[in-house]
Amino acid sequence: MKKYIGIDLGGTNVRVAVIDEEGKILSQVKSPSYATEGRDKVLKNLYSLIRELPDWKECSGIGAGVPGPCNQITGSMMLDTNLPGFKDFPFAQDMSREFGMPAYIDNDANVAGLAEALVGAGKGLPVVYYVTLSTGIGGGLVVDGKCVSGKHGFAGEIANIIIDRNREKVNYLAVGAVENEASGTAIRRKGQEAFGADAIKHAGSVFDLAAEGNEKAKEIIDGAIRDLAQLFATLAAAVDPDAFVLGGGMMQSAHYFLQPLIEKYKEITHDALHDTPFVVAKLDEPGIIGAAMLPKSRGN
Amino acid sequence: MKKYIGIDLGGTNVRVAVIDEEGKILSQVKSPSYATEGRDKVLKNLYSLIRELPDWKECSGIGAGVPGPCNQITGSMMLDTNLPGFKDFPFAQDMSREFGMPAYIDNDANVAGLAEALVGAGKGLPVVYYVTLSTGIGGGLVVDGKCVSGKHGFAGEIANIIIDRNREKVNYLAVGAVENEASGTAIRRKGQEAFGADAIKHAGSVFDLAAEGNEKAKEIIDGAIRDLAQLFATLAAAVDPDAFVLGGGMMQSAHYFLQPLIEKYKEITHDALHDTPFVVAKLDEPGIIGAAMLPKSRGN
Repeated sequence: MKKYIGIDLGGTNVRVAVIDEEGKILSQVKSPSYATEGRDKVLKNLYSLIRELPDWKECSGIGAGVPGPCNQITGSMMLDTNLPGFKDFPFAQDMSREFGMPAYIDNDANVAGLAEALVGAGKGLPVVYYVTLSTGIGGGLVVDGKCVSGKHGFAGEIANIIIDRNREKVNYLAVGAVENEASGTAIRRKGQEAFGADAIKHAGSVFDLAAEGNEKAKEIIDGAIRDLAQLFATLAAAVDPDAFVLGGGMMQSAHYFLQPLIEKYKEITHDALHDTPFVVAKLDEPGIIGAAMLPKSRGN
Repeated sequence: MKKYIGIDLGGTNVRVAVIDEEGKILSQVKSPSYATEGRDKVLKNLYSLIRELPDWKECSGIGAGVPGPCNQITGSMMLDTNLPGFKDFPFAQDMSREFGMPAYIDNDANVAGLAEALVGAGKGLPVVYYVTLSTGIGGGLVVDGKCVSGKHGFAGEIANIIIDRNREKVNYLAVGAVENEASGTAIRRKGQEAFGADAIKHAGSVFDLAAEGNEKAKEIIDGAIRDLAQLFATLAAAVDPDAFVLGGGMMQSAHYFLQPLIEKYKEITHDALHDTPFVVAKLDEPGIIGAAMLPKSRGN
């Protein structure tokens, strides 16, 4: 069975693993990523971690998930907010030269979607739209077992999709952007506006109040459900996925919101789309597994 | 150079052509489709048309564009509003058996998008979103030279994307669906509400009034432009295409609305997405050419 090197490189930590083609982690190591110390330090540390993996030489390729959009033609990051010095650096090419095997990069949400599409909750489906509902809202589109990254690496960057243009401006995102109206952060913000900052530490507090029957909390949650339903209805019209795979911290409250969300989704979509499955992401480590799937998804 | 049989099968007419792999039409015949006379008559007529093409036996495959969503696994139509009797009939398989070559079907908007992506305005680009602005609003997504059809054949069926939920209910589509707010039909409807049915025969009349400086007409067109901008911003976030290719009758007024549309699009998208090209479809016959590209796009 083929094996690949998967890298989950973040602004704080980096993890490196050897993973087989069915997504099983065979060995792994981790360390701080040293992002603030500059690119050379990050790479030196990363490359020495890879060499610590007992069977790295038997691998058929390298994939790295990184925090931000990537250019697939140059194999480089297009923004480097969380990894200073990586913008436009030919990262994939550098890894390929260093280790003598094909190497690829893509952003962390895309590779998580790839993992779920290839070996997770969407295994074997031709079109998977992975959506992560967390403090932010992100996602990844996988078609025929390959990430669709798009011209700017922004495919799946759905946070800025407008679900109701008649809202207040919150931040740099467009007015009514779904992330500002229905993410964990948005639910916390609306909860704090209603109940005060002391009462609401995170979105879960609002879910709890709603479950207890608090009318104001229910209104906040119902609004977020309606907003999310419109996001999914929009994605269904745009790409008609074989499944939505849902991940992220908000899924801890899925028992409260998922069924009503699907009902709302049906109200605003064509009958033909009503049976699109909404499935819960099932991998514990989609980031590093999906990174390892990058070379596999490109035929290596 | 390889050649393919392309079929443009509608509710009124059917056209059949031999087309080379660069999209050049080598020979073609057409006739009524006899849709109201039932499937057997439609097929008998269609198959005899194909045999009239002088070089059909030299072709490497058959593709048909049909009016409605298709199931790619069974090669059948999923709705047959315009071709009674074709729902769930294994149309692709039937053609393949009849002519001894691979055969595929897909809906007319998807194949038009495929034509533009392979040999038209989006030639060679990895991700193309084709959008047709006409009496209705439709589209097709092409990734790596293949139509993405989706679970229900509905990928690209963007008419029902909600661009503003605070509108009036118009018909079976969702409240605020873009087709009811910014299509040619919608612009005509709004024009007739403002100026009376006698003054406004079609959307072009409203564009003409706006161009003459009529404030009410400008308001209608500006509203439609804002609505369309949101549609494109949404699609950019969902799939980040390498280009939007725009076709359909409304493009006759492109000189009036396309540039303001792009400006509005930029206002509601991330900076990184501002340079996504909006290009005008360039094929005269994308439907039949795209149909012929179906077998090519599947490796035949």
